[in-house]
Amino acid sequence: MTDSAIEDLKQALRKLPGIGPKSAQRMALHLLGRDREGARQIAEALQNALERVRHCRRCNNFSEQEICGICSSERRDASLLCVVESTADLVSLEQSAAYNGMYFVLMGHLSPLDGIGPDELGIARLEHLFDTQQIKEVILATNPTVEGEATAHYIGELARAHKIRTTRIAYGVPVGGELEYIDRGTLARAVSGRRET
Amino acid sequence: MTDSAIEDLKQALRKLPGIGPKSAQRMALHLLGRDREGARQIAEALQNALERVRHCRRCNNFSEQEICGICSSERRDASLLCVVESTADLVSLEQSAAYNGMYFVLMGHLSPLDGIGPDELGIARLEHLFDTQQIKEVILATNPTVEGEATAHYIGELARAHKIRTTRIAYGVPVGGELEYIDRGTLARAVSGRRET
Repeated sequence: MTDSAIEDLKQALRKLPGIGPKSAQRMALHLLGRDREGARQIAEALQNALERVRHCRRCNNFSEQEICGICSSERRDASLLCVVESTADLVSLEQSAAYNGMYFVLMGHLSPLDGIGPDELGIARLEHLFDTQQIKEVILATNPTVEGEATAHYIGELARAHKIRTTRIAYGVPVGGELEYIDRGTLARAVSGRRET
Repeated sequence: MTDSAIEDLKQALRKLPGIGPKSAQRMALHLLGRDREGARQIAEALQNALERVRHCRRCNNFSEQEICGICSSERRDASLLCVVESTADLVSLEQSAAYNGMYFVLMGHLSPLDGIGPDELGIARLEHLFDTQQIKEVILATNPTVEGEATAHYIGELARAHKIRTTRIAYGVPVGGELEYIDRGTLARAVSGRRET
């Protein structure tokens, strides 16, 4: 019924995040049956990206150059440094268009039980930025999870040791959310963090 | 921030069925950041499948040979022919392990408004099977939708004109479903189609 090339393709598609066996099968049959041109485009785009996309030597963001477009831009505020856990977080912040400074992308968060300490996150390179750049403020934008908080705390200490001001992104109710469905912890933070109108 | 290779990859991944811009972005960042080996495997599997997978000349199923494994198997009952709308339907039936005959895969269903008539579905080739093979029963396994029913009706007429017995897969409540959540049409069919226990 199915030959090995289709089976191999189904297996390979399961490498995509969030794709289980059923979805992988649906994708494989769709591409082979109805969109071979699309399949060709995906294969080419993957190979092209694998060849060309590297990490920015300064901030870890994805880049086709040694230094990414943000780090090399003259229109960005080099006195602000925003620390995020992943390139996906960086992309989300960029899409919000609320930030115009520089970034540093950690490769995850501190997780001692998994053997992920400061070395694994490249924090020495972050400290090098603290030493060499004129940074006035470090914005801690790690995730609002236990590990993200611990990571933010650790980097905050480090920045303050370099006499750099540190801030943490605000907690509160998500815009467009309904209070009824928001968890107690978030609501408590939204109330305690209330501001004058 | 993002260079063209990543943008191209995001665009390409949207060719996958059910994948919108957010998921495509997540996939692209995940593959490039955390699973480059997986990305390489997907690209290779796609190209390998594009090269090797064709349609079976007899039943339209995917195959790496001219005649697929089902059509060339001697352990299958060649007197039964099951007509389905897509290879995905064929795969689902095979996985149910309830059927041991042959298949014919239509390329969709009759849809006059979209210009899809008998010619587009390859019905001449199906009729050729009616003429040349010793078929005792045609099982109509098109989808239980308006178009699927019309297609089943059309093919049923054709088979009867060739003096071949035709059957339609049963309608009823899905196994494991709860009556409370099943639509009225299905329940009505389940009642009218009840059988002695």
